[in-house]
Amino acid sequence: MSRRTRTCGDPIHGQAGDVDAGAEGTLQPLWGRWVWRSQARSEAGEAQIMVTGQANGAIWCPLGWAWPAYSSYYLCSDKGAFQDVNVLVILGFGFLLAFLKRYGFSSTGFNLLIAALGVQWAVLVEGFLFSSSAGKMKISLHSVLKASISVTAVLISAGALLGKANPIQLIWMAMVEVAAFSTSRWINVKFLKVEEHTSLMHVHIFGTYFGLAVSWWLYHSSLSERVEKEKSNPISDLFSMLGTLFLWMFWPSFNSVLIVDLMEKRNAICNTYYAIGVSAVAAFALSSLSSRNGKIRMIHIHHAALAGGVALGFSAPIIPHPWIAMMLGLLASMVAVLGSHCLQTYLNSVLKIHDTCGVHYMFGLPGLLGAIVNVILFIIIKRASLSSLGYLALIEVGSFMLTTAIGLGTGFITGFILTFKLWKTLPASKYFDDQAYWEFPHLAYGF
Amino acid sequence: MSRRTRTCGDPIHGQAGDVDAGAEGTLQPLWGRWVWRSQARSEAGEAQIMVTGQANGAIWCPLGWAWPAYSSYYLCSDKGAFQDVNVLVILGFGFLLAFLKRYGFSSTGFNLLIAALGVQWAVLVEGFLFSSSAGKMKISLHSVLKASISVTAVLISAGALLGKANPIQLIWMAMVEVAAFSTSRWINVKFLKVEEHTSLMHVHIFGTYFGLAVSWWLYHSSLSERVEKEKSNPISDLFSMLGTLFLWMFWPSFNSVLIVDLMEKRNAICNTYYAIGVSAVAAFALSSLSSRNGKIRMIHIHHAALAGGVALGFSAPIIPHPWIAMMLGLLASMVAVLGSHCLQTYLNSVLKIHDTCGVHYMFGLPGLLGAIVNVILFIIIKRASLSSLGYLALIEVGSFMLTTAIGLGTGFITGFILTFKLWKTLPASKYFDDQAYWEFPHLAYGF
Amino acid sequence: MSRRTRTCGDPIHGQAGDVDAGAEGTLQPLWGRWVWRSQARSEAGEAQIMVTGQANGAIWCPLGWAWPAYSSYYLCSDKGAFQDVNVLVILGFGFLLAFLKRYGFSSTGFNLLIAALGVQWAVLVEGFLFSSSAGKMKISLHSVLKASISVTAVLISAGALLGKANPIQLIWMAMVEVAAFSTSRWINVKFLKVEEHTSLMHVHIFGTYFGLAVSWWLYHSSLSERVEKEKSNPISDLFSMLGTLFLWMFWPSFNSVLIVDLMEKRNAICNTYYAIGVSAVAAFALSSLSSRNGKIRMIHIHHAALAGGVALGFSAPIIPHPWIAMMLGLLASMVAVLGSHCLQTYLNSVLKIHDTCGVHYMFGLPGLLGAIVNVILFIIIKRASLSSLGYLALIEVGSFMLTTAIGLGTGFITGFILTFKLWKTLPASKYFDDQAYWEFPHLAYGF
Repeated sequence: MSRRTRTCGDPIHGQAGDVDAGAEGTLQPLWGRWVWRSQARSEAGEAQIMVTGQANGAIWCPLGWAWPAYSSYYLCSDKGAFQDVNVLVILGFGFLLAFLKRYGFSSTGFNLLIAALGVQWAVLVEGFLFSSSAGKMKISLHSVLKASISVTAVLISAGALLGKANPIQLIWMAMVEVAAFSTSRWINVKFLKVEEHTSLMHVHIFGTYFGLAVSWWLYHSSLSERVEKEKSNPISDLFSMLGTLFLWMFWPSFNSVLIVDLMEKRNAICNTYYAIGVSAVAAFALSSLSSRNGKIRMIHIHHAALAGGVALGFSAPIIPHPWIAMMLGLLASMVAVLGSHCLQTYLNSVLKIHDTCGVHYMFGLPGLLGAIVNVILFIIIKRASLSSLGYLALIEVGSFMLTTAIGLGTGFITGFILTFKLWKTLPASKYFDDQAYWEFPHLAYGF
Repeated sequence: MSRRTRTCGDPIHGQAGDVDAGAEGTLQPLWGRWVWRSQARSEAGEAQIMVTGQANGAIWCPLGWAWPAYSSYYLCSDKGAFQDVNVLVILGFGFLLAFLKRYGFSSTGFNLLIAALGVQWAVLVEGFLFSSSAGKMKISLHSVLKASISVTAVLISAGALLGKANPIQLIWMAMVEVAAFSTSRWINVKFLKVEEHTSLMHVHIFGTYFGLAVSWWLYHSSLSERVEKEKSNPISDLFSMLGTLFLWMFWPSFNSVLIVDLMEKRNAICNTYYAIGVSAVAAFALSSLSSRNGKIRMIHIHHAALAGGVALGFSAPIIPHPWIAMMLGLLASMVAVLGSHCLQTYLNSVLKIHDTCGVHYMFGLPGLLGAIVNVILFIIIKRASLSSLGYLALIEVGSFMLTTAIGLGTGFITGFILTFKLWKTLPASKYFDDQAYWEFPHLAYGF
Repeated sequence: MSRRTRTCGDPIHGQAGDVDAGAEGTLQPLWGRWVWRSQARSEAGEAQIMVTGQANGAIWCPLGWAWPAYSSYYLCSDKGAFQDVNVLVILGFGFLLAFLKRYGFSSTGFNLLIAALGVQWAVLVEGFLFSSSAGKMKISLHSVLKASISVTAVLISAGALLGKANPIQLIWMAMVEVAAFSTSRWINVKFLKVEEHTSLMHVHIFGTYFGLAVSWWLYHSSLSERVEKEKSNPISDLFSMLGTLFLWMFWPSFNSVLIVDLMEKRNAICNTYYAIGVSAVAAFALSSLSSRNGKIRMIHIHHAALAGGVALGFSAPIIPHPWIAMMLGLLASMVAVLGSHCLQTYLNSVLKIHDTCGVHYMFGLPGLLGAIVNVILFIIIKRASLSSLGYLALIEVGSFMLTTAIGLGTGFITGFILTFKLWKTLPASKYFDDQAYWEFPHLAYGF
């Protein structure tokens, strides 16, 4: 009893390794057989719990595909942090993307669809790659949490394709992207010895470049200038603001949820909070400065306010001074606002990429900035203590470049496949319109 | 100090029984007299806290009715889980019901009204039925939590009556329904020895059939076909989506909050999450398949995405394999979508029931499905260990049939009373319209 | 390890004092130098953690001003409660103020701007006033939490100025007001020996009277009657309802987050919950009673539902009987609804004050009511035990009158400064309009 509550009330997530390490004295139910073995160590309240379940059944996957494996549940995990990430993924991204005036249903609905599907698929793929042993697979609230973070890659890519891909294409993309990201993560963790937290924070970079590569294939000449339906209206922008605020409020949880060390976790929360605070303030200032008449653009606020959080992804736990976090938040905000002006106008039209939600400068560039700053901080902090510093820094650089390359490569292939007639792609005239997918009992469209 | 934090940081809710059991070594304030008695056991950090308050005053009820009883507070309870259920009840249901295009104020406003009133009333009724002894009544955050769950019965019934009942009728209905549900629950717990968690999860079935019975009385021939005002528009549907997403995200908390055993709690969270994940995905597929032109209906998504969570209510903690939870989520989603087609079109017009929000196939049928599956699982799991299996299974079946019967019966009587002229019922021409109850400074209705 | 989790899973916030008191056996990293010293006491699981960081750098402030001080992080604080207050500040206030039909962007956007900026500034100011010693300043999640609560004063004042002040004026006001409130709080804590919780709960009174004094200067004769743009429409009212519900749901956290004693914390949660429950119900009844045709006004619901929470701010932890909390909730609701009729119609036009959001009767009067009730309760509860009761009661009365006076005085000066031409104030014809500050790609305004 005594250790049980301590382990689970623990803000540090009980890692599989930690729990196994103290496997002596366990409360071990065999899930599916309901056999309980419980022991309590008597010294100084030091008892352990290992909740392990073994099920001889199969995990049923929503696509009708059966997985013939053992599953076991490590149930000790942090419910609160999981809830925060869940809110961020389902509600934050859903409403962030709801800024198109005639695409609110699809933005929120398809976000729920690919998030719910993607998480289940990611749990299976990650379980297979990371925690399967001898035909068994471990599934827990912690693996659902990691799957939720992985799935943000898909949601970011879906942001680049917003209004242009139909749900079947999105589902297919979600399947491929989750598998590709998990593989990339597996290579990073297995061969480059990247930490789990860092490897998952690559999600922004991976999602962006995967999405842009797919977007290149779905480009259509009519997309070169904004059509009427691709614009927002005040109400859809307000819904998008709602999503932005949810992302803004829960981003400190996103950046800190996977960190095991308590003090690093607190650092990550504080640093992320400072960075997004500065980002939000800078977003207003920069947006006003960058427009001719000093007016603020809502889209800048949506993008730049979050850029600081994205940039802090890698280095949030190790940044030693708050001013570094704040500076990084300011830089990220600048990158997002400048990117919004330059990329959208010049680069994207040259490269023939259409990025509906602007994920390139919202997630991609701040993510790259964060990765570079992370390497620099790594070098500065570890300067004295390590002889093989150059080699380690190279690994760090290599890991995010590898991730970018895999994202671009697999995105390119996926995009090519998505152009097949098989997927019943929409004609460009029906882009950005809910009426292509949703039944409207009300004929006069009220938006 | 040492045990205090452990007890209260404890995800398992400190039950009255648990705390009393270790009453030795207590920190016992007499509330109202401010006498503190504190003892700390010295062995191995094993100290106990029992926070008991006795107030000689009366609980003042918002209707001006005084309750001449002692109240005592068990204050040790799980704040986080309470917050989740609170969000689900106030925000989730409020905005879920906001789908009618001219009824947004009433949907969210009256939901707040009957939730706030119902919780206070439920605390009194439940305190009187369950925890009163010798004229004293125990009130705590835990009893507010249970009251919040009980009140969902009223909110579900209000969904069936949405747009047809005025606030006075809703308040009266809330009063009667809370009392009826608590009585039904008391019979279940006292005589059929049903567990507390299970008895509270009857809330979906009870609320639905109570609401449908009331709805039968409020039926009007003009309701047989959808009037213009009974439809949604894209913005109201988007607000409703917001409510749905809140319900979707916090449903795992709803299904697990009352479970005491830590491992069963985690199981309940995971199983519910898987089930609603599958439900959400299936909702899109089934909605698309069931329409002529392959288009998705928003109302299906709202209903079917949550059906899985409802169906898991009873059996979430004991389902041994994830695939069972997923299968059940799929079945519940099917029931909701098929129900939406068949019930709304055929059955309801024959039975002369008008169910505005479709609670019958959103909460009622998935709830019944869950109850049946629960009995089957109960038989399978306990097969080997119990000799009196048939008898116990009969009790389980009896308990939910009894709940349904009490719901239908009391709902029928309540509905009859609600037809009295006393309540100043609205003419059917003013149904589904905020302007009957709310002042609009803006004459031109902007929706 | 053992005490670490207990301290931080602890719902009672680990105060600096508490942690220092047990500094024996610490895990002490020197932040910036990454030196870790860790000791674990072996008796009965009693080990301590003190997480202290010292950074030789400077905190960079978003306005380009460097703070040449040492900062140290006390990282042990309650993440969940911080999250609740964060949601309340960013989302609750943002959408509460979004009720003007053409001012949704500015309401939510500028709320984010001044909240993000104000929190950073408040951390610096409060750190300087309260926790600086020998050139060092302590910054932690707990100080961010306190800063978030302080910033609600600015958000309340901004509610009184809603639609009339431009962002530059708001930023300036935020800077001055945070400094003034912190100074007022410092005087209260230092000289009048007011508790920290109570001193922070003065935030409602201070914010209101500061805002009203500023509003007096910004008064314009055209504001005497409501212009078309100052009205709401159903959609903006629904967004405002969303904000109100968030405030309503998280108000118990706001009133209890700073309380250290566990039992008082639980009392505060329960009492606040009961009070706002009664407030919400009473808001509907009183709104209906106070209108000619029995119809409900949405604005009354927004204001009166929250008034109970505001009134409970001071006395929530010490109210001994639930009926007192409920009575106070009812009274506060009455004050808010009556104030809405009388103040807005008569007093404000006489005093030439224009209070857009009605903060005077939403936060000001309920806050004063709460302060008076607090003094009465203080006298009743402490009657027997204290000889110097009159003196102490005088101090209590003095403390909130001092706060009101400082608020009015500094607000008056700030308002005077805000009338300077320097700030490029808007002409009154452009009040209450997003188009003055925001770029609209859509020419036809769709609201």
